[in-house]
Amino acid sequence: MDYSPKTSTLTHLECPECRREFDADVLQSICHRCNSPLLARYDLDAVSQYLTPGDVHTRPPGLWRWSEILPLRQLGCKVTLGEGDTPIFSLPRLGKYVGISNLFVKDESRNPTGTFKARGLSVAVSRALELGVNTFVIPTAGNAGAALAAYAARAGCRAHVFMPRQSDRSNQAEVRLAGANLVLVEGSISEAAIEARSAAAAHSDSDKQDINSNWFDMSTFKEPYRLEGKKTMGLEIAECFGWQLPDVIVYPTGGGTGLVGMWKAFGELFAMGWINERFPRMVAVQTEACPPIVRAFQENRDRVNIHQDAQTIANGLRVPEPFADRLILDTIYASQGYALAVSDEQIKQASKQLAQLEGILAAFEGAATLAALMLLRDQGRVKDKDKVLLMNTGSGLKTIL
Amino acid sequence: MDYSPKTSTLTHLECPECRREFDADVLQSICHRCNSPLLARYDLDAVSQYLTPGDVHTRPPGLWRWSEILPLRQLGCKVTLGEGDTPIFSLPRLGKYVGISNLFVKDESRNPTGTFKARGLSVAVSRALELGVNTFVIPTAGNAGAALAAYAARAGCRAHVFMPRQSDRSNQAEVRLAGANLVLVEGSISEAAIEARSAAAAHSDSDKQDINSNWFDMSTFKEPYRLEGKKTMGLEIAECFGWQLPDVIVYPTGGGTGLVGMWKAFGELFAMGWINERFPRMVAVQTEACPPIVRAFQENRDRVNIHQDAQTIANGLRVPEPFADRLILDTIYASQGYALAVSDEQIKQASKQLAQLEGILAAFEGAATLAALMLLRDQGRVKDKDKVLLMNTGSGLKTIL
Repeated sequence: MDYSPKTSTLTHLECPECRREFDADVLQSICHRCNSPLLARYDLDAVSQYLTPGDVHTRPPGLWRWSEILPLRQLGCKVTLGEGDTPIFSLPRLGKYVGISNLFVKDESRNPTGTFKARGLSVAVSRALELGVNTFVIPTAGNAGAALAAYAARAGCRAHVFMPRQSDRSNQAEVRLAGANLVLVEGSISEAAIEARSAAAAHSDSDKQDINSNWFDMSTFKEPYRLEGKKTMGLEIAECFGWQLPDVIVYPTGGGTGLVGMWKAFGELFAMGWINERFPRMVAVQTEACPPIVRAFQENRDRVNIHQDAQTIANGLRVPEPFADRLILDTIYASQGYALAVSDEQIKQASKQLAQLEGILAAFEGAATLAALMLLRDQGRVKDKDKVLLMNTGSGLKTIL
Repeated sequence: MDYSPKTSTLTHLECPECRREFDADVLQSICHRCNSPLLARYDLDAVSQYLTPGDVHTRPPGLWRWSEILPLRQLGCKVTLGEGDTPIFSLPRLGKYVGISNLFVKDESRNPTGTFKARGLSVAVSRALELGVNTFVIPTAGNAGAALAAYAARAGCRAHVFMPRQSDRSNQAEVRLAGANLVLVEGSISEAAIEARSAAAAHSDSDKQDINSNWFDMSTFKEPYRLEGKKTMGLEIAECFGWQLPDVIVYPTGGGTGLVGMWKAFGELFAMGWINERFPRMVAVQTEACPPIVRAFQENRDRVNIHQDAQTIANGLRVPEPFADRLILDTIYASQGYALAVSDEQIKQASKQLAQLEGILAAFEGAATLAALMLLRDQGRVKDKDKVLLMNTGSGLKTIL
């Protein structure tokens, strides 16, 4: 098939469990048979024929540079606040302190609403609008709710945001300021999800199957396109490092969309012939209070056991039962990566070190990656000469007060 | 003279009042004879011979793309957190509401530390380091102190930050987290400046003239290079609009570095032949609580009277006596611009409108530009067809709690 430049080459959606294909041009949620997320697939052969790294590089900045491998058919429909193309830079002083000569950070705090959640919501809101949605519902640990509220406002849509009462107050204030409907919930994102589903069901049109046509569910991995937005982090990493990926990427893992998304991006770039087979080891960091992925990894399982909910200062890591557990664990195993937990005390200490040695005001989730790196270095799992990239997923401004 | 690409073409510093030239390769502060800021001058003829817009466009993102017209001699000495290249995007829903068909925002909240102050401090800290400084002192309304603390930490330098006790608590927390010395002061930035000077004098080496060689004074316009960092906003605006400047730029004016900086940028680009003579009308927005520039403009003066200090929610606009008043007023007059004040109530309302109509979480200073635009539109000073750019100078996250 022939595509004109900047046109999406989206072909279909696929269940990674049963490999069944789904029509990408109607609203979809998950593979109900496998209870699995769906993955967007593209005509990568075609893309590799006519698109070059130079083409993408010279387009106006932002994640929509990658439109051939994003799902939006009509690029004019994009809902953008200028997300993506966050900087990657070296951390020489911190590297010396930790004992890593080539240490880098990707600073996702520089997205709209101050977190990497903007990427997923920009793409998912855009694509849902293209498919006819105008009301959204989301359960969230906090940041994704603030991002959805912003993009829904930008698009002139309604958003219903279900958030734990103990989430960061900044996120609650952002949702309210953007005019979205904020529902505070006792418990974690798991309880928020139950309440969100129940409210959505009460508002859905019973004539239509699967989809809450009135309140469209934007939960992590419950629709296919937040993942596509998050994968652009991986595309930018590959480009920024001159198409030679780093040795290790350390990522704070709650719902895991970023981890799975980066891995998906690397696979697509490899299929397009833009990178070689040297993929990074993907390290998932969680907190001691809520480590379901770490537990599963330690026991070599491919599913999590639901974890007893507990408090942590890193609210984005308070995800007791990530829906995409299989994809997250697959990524860690396939990359010969690792999973480990850090304490709130270690996170606070790392947050200070980032600020005092490098001037970076990191989210607690981002600081957790530094805390984890120090453990990995002590354990010899990461070596001095490894090129290591920390993912700072958000701004410390969200929690500094 | 021949220059290699990416090399600064800085030739000298100049007093805009007496036109005297100053050596740019030693530490300088102000023209003491005229009590005026000094302006950096470049060999723009040479630059226009060998540099093209395409060269600058294809370099790695960030303000250091413009190194030929920035003051740093050794680009390897730059102290960067990936500042600059913030997005400009259109505001269709808000434009319809206000009655401006071509309304845009430049979202400076996307800089390190969440404000446009990062630009000035990145360049000024870098250049001061190159000239031998390792300890800084700054009086600040808040945001500049947080930015200096971050860049000083990044460089491994000491920073002493003098800030009003009533400044935003987020800025105070940022300075502390980055390990700088925070001194809280009763009053406004004017009182902070008095205390900072006094402390700096106590620590300066009396053998050296003019410069606090031990505590280098980074006050707005008291050294020449924060202005150079801020001017990169103007360079990016010109590039982003395809070298056709907008008709009106609305800018929240405290110390005025951004306003003067953008104007300086346009002049330099014109001298290089990259833009034509259609410069924007520059509109300075202040608050009713502290409008020294507005008062001077109304009375057609070229100097401000010191304004009785008063509280406002827009702390960055609480500058009772801007040191660069002549340059600010010159810019407004030369551009056939305007100056007007808005109330805190109007700012709060505009902040809601930015969030609810466009998903933008603006600083109160940024929201003030929208409040001002509504007044200008009502007064007929800005027309429907004018291409108007609002400068959102910072993130609403700094004050949302």
